[in-house]
Amino acid sequence: ESQLIIKERQQTTFQVEELINLLDGGKEKTALRRSIEQTILSDPLMKTDKIGYLTREQKYVQSVRRMMYFFTDLAKRNKWNIEDPHCPEMLFLSRSLSSVVAFMIHMGAFVPSISSFGTLEQVSKWQPLAKECLIIGCYAQTELGHGTNLRRLETTSTFDRNTQEFIVNTPNLSSMKWWPGDMGKSANHAMVMAQLITNGENHGMQAFIVPIRDMTTHKPLPGVEVGNIGSIMSLEDTDNGYLRLNNVRIPKENMLAKYANVDRSGRFQQTGNNRLMYASMMNLRIVLTREQMIHALQKACTIAARYSCVRKQGSLTPNGPEIPIMDYVTQQNKVIPRIALAYALDFTIMEVRHRYVQFLADVTRGDLSNMAEMHAISSGIKANASERTVAGVETLRRACGGHGYSMASGLPYLLLSVTGSCTYEGENTVLYLQVARYLIKTAANISMGKSVDGSSAYLAENTEARCSATSQEEFYDHSLLDACFKHRSKQLLQSVAMDLQGLLAEGKQQMEAWNLLSIQLVNSAKAHIERYIVATSASFVRKLNCSLKVKKLLNQLCSLVALHQITNFPGDFLKDGYLDSHQLDLARKAEVKLLQSLRHNVVGLVDAFDFRDEILGSCIGAYDGNAYERLYDYAKNDVMNKNDVHEESYQYLRPHLHRG
Amino acid sequence: ESQLIIKERQQTTFQVEELINLLDGGKEKTALRRSIEQTILSDPLMKTDKIGYLTREQKYVQSVRRMMYFFTDLAKRNKWNIEDPHCPEMLFLSRSLSSVVAFMIHMGAFVPSISSFGTLEQVSKWQPLAKECLIIGCYAQTELGHGTNLRRLETTSTFDRNTQEFIVNTPNLSSMKWWPGDMGKSANHAMVMAQLITNGENHGMQAFIVPIRDMTTHKPLPGVEVGNIGSIMSLEDTDNGYLRLNNVRIPKENMLAKYANVDRSGRFQQTGNNRLMYASMMNLRIVLTREQMIHALQKACTIAARYSCVRKQGSLTPNGPEIPIMDYVTQQNKVIPRIALAYALDFTIMEVRHRYVQFLADVTRGDLSNMAEMHAISSGIKANASERTVAGVETLRRACGGHGYSMASGLPYLLLSVTGSCTYEGENTVLYLQVARYLIKTAANISMGKSVDGSSAYLAENTEARCSATSQEEFYDHSLLDACFKHRSKQLLQSVAMDLQGLLAEGKQQMEAWNLLSIQLVNSAKAHIERYIVATSASFVRKLNCSLKVKKLLNQLCSLVALHQITNFPGDFLKDGYLDSHQLDLARKAEVKLLQSLRHNVVGLVDAFDFRDEILGSCIGAYDGNAYERLYDYAKNDVMNKNDVHEESYQYLRPHLHRG
Repeated sequence: ESQLIIKERQQTTFQVEELINLLDGGKEKTALRRSIEQTILSDPLMKTDKIGYLTREQKYVQSVRRMMYFFTDLAKRNKWNIEDPHCPEMLFLSRSLSSVVAFMIHMGAFVPSISSFGTLEQVSKWQPLAKECLIIGCYAQTELGHGTNLRRLETTSTFDRNTQEFIVNTPNLSSMKWWPGDMGKSANHAMVMAQLITNGENHGMQAFIVPIRDMTTHKPLPGVEVGNIGSIMSLEDTDNGYLRLNNVRIPKENMLAKYANVDRSGRFQQTGNNRLMYASMMNLRIVLTREQMIHALQKACTIAARYSCVRKQGSLTPNGPEIPIMDYVTQQNKVIPRIALAYALDFTIMEVRHRYVQFLADVTRGDLSNMAEMHAISSGIKANASERTVAGVETLRRACGGHGYSMASGLPYLLLSVTGSCTYEGENTVLYLQVARYLIKTAANISMGKSVDGSSAYLAENTEARCSATSQEEFYDHSLLDACFKHRSKQLLQSVAMDLQGLLAEGKQQMEAWNLLSIQLVNSAKAHIERYIVATSASFVRKLNCSLKVKKLLNQLCSLVALHQITNFPGDFLKDGYLDSHQLDLARKAEVKLLQSLRHNVVGLVDAFDFRDEILGSCIGAYDGNAYERLYDYAKNDVMNKNDVHEESYQYLRPHLHRG
Repeated sequence: ESQLIIKERQQTTFQVEELINLLDGGKEKTALRRSIEQTILSDPLMKTDKIGYLTREQKYVQSVRRMMYFFTDLAKRNKWNIEDPHCPEMLFLSRSLSSVVAFMIHMGAFVPSISSFGTLEQVSKWQPLAKECLIIGCYAQTELGHGTNLRRLETTSTFDRNTQEFIVNTPNLSSMKWWPGDMGKSANHAMVMAQLITNGENHGMQAFIVPIRDMTTHKPLPGVEVGNIGSIMSLEDTDNGYLRLNNVRIPKENMLAKYANVDRSGRFQQTGNNRLMYASMMNLRIVLTREQMIHALQKACTIAARYSCVRKQGSLTPNGPEIPIMDYVTQQNKVIPRIALAYALDFTIMEVRHRYVQFLADVTRGDLSNMAEMHAISSGIKANASERTVAGVETLRRACGGHGYSMASGLPYLLLSVTGSCTYEGENTVLYLQVARYLIKTAANISMGKSVDGSSAYLAENTEARCSATSQEEFYDHSLLDACFKHRSKQLLQSVAMDLQGLLAEGKQQMEAWNLLSIQLVNSAKAHIERYIVATSASFVRKLNCSLKVKKLLNQLCSLVALHQITNFPGDFLKDGYLDSHQLDLARKAEVKLLQSLRHNVVGLVDAFDFRDEILGSCIGAYDGNAYERLYDYAKNDVMNKNDVHEESYQYLRPHLHRG
């Protein structure tokens, strides 16, 4: 163990294990998580080869091998209830596996959507087959030409009365299904979203189970063209596919009919409220925010913080000894605010999950009143967390200098994987504009005197026109910081709402006016969500039952997240004079002071994320801090170093070289 | 050709060819560039395999094969003067090759540094061998434990009087050389930077030519351990290496002795001004800024702009026809400011190169008076251009939605390649702090009444305390915009200089105070460089001899670059009341208006970058706009689609699948 990192751990002012338990949700949960990790990581059949040296094809094959073993054997033996997204094991499994794996869509989207869309009869027919991996499914929604505008999907499913079948077609190039995970080479069934057409009438999107590969030969069925879409930026453990369907006939009962059905004569009938389907999309965004984004940020923080404490460079005294780069304020400013963000987002998402469970209970009782707010929160948090996580991981990667560019650091893999999250499950700009739509409606409600509650209640509150702070210390105060964020959000919303009215009064059409103001609308949505994170994480910490030391530390982290936003993006706080120049100077000085006071707990704070070295996969971020030894070891084992002379390349040099 | 892109080209208001010539530096230069591109791209031996499917090892071997052919055959036959960084061909070669290739360090760093550091005798001995690729060299400076603090490099070269040799050592793990390109498997010589020790005394860093591999067997020489450092984020066409030296003896004449030498008794003598060595580092930063960063940004702009014009999604009228996503203001706001930045940076770097040539002439005459300013500009522009390029490429990648995540878009490759530029050739934060050091000195000179000229003259000027703008239109005015940036930079510098004095007065040590203020110092440096870019690009356009249409357009682009910074980072413009809330609103409205007026020239503006499809390597950004056809084609040719059934993975599925 590096002496430098031992020294860091000696400086830690709190019990790391207390914070670990707190993040897991209790001591027992920590024990459960560690035992799952131990089972998975100690199983030789679950071992992965070192990243960076496999071809795209090898990655996929390795993942299929591992995950087929996992689902049909390991998980079963351990009685992990893998298809239930709410079982405690599921929350810990993704930490132990690499973030994206084969059959994630099969198990995480195909299986649950059978119960989301299917009748009880359909569920009992298809779900057992899928759960046991006797069939492999994918979820075929996005098309080559359509992602965000789902209403314009071009795939059709036309009812044929004569045979009581549907005829499924992707009528042109742009309508072929594109991107679905597990589709390229693995799946033999697809849940296809298509325009339902009966008796010449379009009834909108419905879900159909379409067999795409033969169960005996695995070859594409007649009328089906299916394959892999080719190499992508990362996440190559799975096979994203394309699918063309040419008059593919499926039995009538393959239309999933929980909310709508077609009778023998082709008459369409809506039998339930399909808005309930949206509830599962909300859940997916919440799950991904934690499992993909926050975990990636926490891992990157762990790597960068530990490395910054063992990397020495330069000095702060003339000709003095070299010091860890973590002692530089610029480095603290890169690393510590990201650690704070990783905590604040984790606390926020715990609260969101809690609210989502209540919301589901309401929905089950038929109460849909919180639908719009829940949708805004889940969309906004996904957009904001992904955007800030990606920026954070890249900042942390660069904070590790040259070694952050090496795959050996583990950081490039984290960045490439997480950056997709700004696009999938709702492109961020589109999501922000949906949040803005909710906010504009809320503003209209408020101006009509309607009451507003929940996460938007503050929009109806009266606030001070100026921040009251006169000292640095006040900028650590959560309610003062929250007031800043409330004010900014209110002000941006009022301003864009007024501009919108103005344009409409000038005679602009609604959609045109909306487009002209869309930059402002996105900013307003961001401000609302950022306020939500500031308020929610602080109130989560306030309610925590923990030691005073830990509570103090977590309060500091919450302050830092808010402060860092103010000092780095002060524009909208200054614009209408809510903050003045002097106050911004105070905030900036307060931030530097806070960074320095958190400095000695940096390693403790990332140790509390409790990622085992095998999960981190980083030479420079391992627990023992032996960065250089591990880098050297990694290099020596490089495939290109098998032989001193690399014959394949040397053959092109040899004919030219000068012979002494 | 896509009808949509034809329509875009019909809307273009200017002659694209005029702008192409302007960017190349004249009609003849365009012809020369195109002929070089044609020669290279039509040569079957120069063809590269599709990216995304090769292993790290295959990429390296392919690059060695191509580049060995290029240097020893193709370039020779065409009489391209490849080792002269100032010959016109060199400016165009990197466009045609992929951005980083094997032997780039050999030809671009090893060869020129022989003349930078060597005596005439040494140059005539080594350079012909290296130019002809009879020997392959690398440049071994960075160590595992030291990158930015060069003075603390640990490699030693100790003079042995008895044998008239140097004994070169990397005495411990952290001192082994790490990262040098071409070192891992190719090079047989290394230019090693080491502490020179004679008669027990350390004389600081000198350059030594150390043979590392046997010229007959290519095996490492005795005492040499050398290999590849392992997989990195991108740029894998070359072999970054590590090197341990254990008592490796080299002849006395292998110390490059242009500026310093050691006599037979071991007496050290400085014979020239080694500050001149810095001049070559400045040039490398300037070259990289254009060849790596600006080209990458221009390519990404080309891809995103064309794709945004052929991608239809949603509508701006209820149930209206779908429209190109380029019609959305949020999309315009992602794409067009990056196009403007790509132009502004290109104009700026042309001016910087021009100034560098003048500077070199001064230096040759013994006039070093512009050293500090030139250093600040070249460091600052490298840091700022790399930072904004990387952010820009990622914004453009995300603007292409899901398809931007596919390697088929060409965007991931651009991002991964260019993001290294924030770290290599001077880590950005370190560079900004060097610029800040220059600024603080300048501020001190000004306060002592000394005159300041060149790029910092404005710091001594009196400026208005408030911006005078009262209308949107004024925010297109270059001198009004320049005044904003001048004011911001002055204000930030004054404020941090005052804080520095305050801390010193409180008794803080210089280095401690510097550290405490380093966030502010970085911001001040950024503001200075951003002002330099705003002013330099605008004055470059002002002096251009071109059609009024093109001039108007380029003026708009320069305005947009400045405006976009103000609207997105308004904090420091608002902070002391230089801009007020109303003016910021005007600026924001002015920006939206400008985006819309540039909208119809978007394709023309990126066509003018004139990247051939083979160089772009993008399915979604090709000239003809047939994005979907090309994506489908790319997918069909994926290696994993060779057979319908992918046997290697299917073997793990087969035993489990349900047999109908």
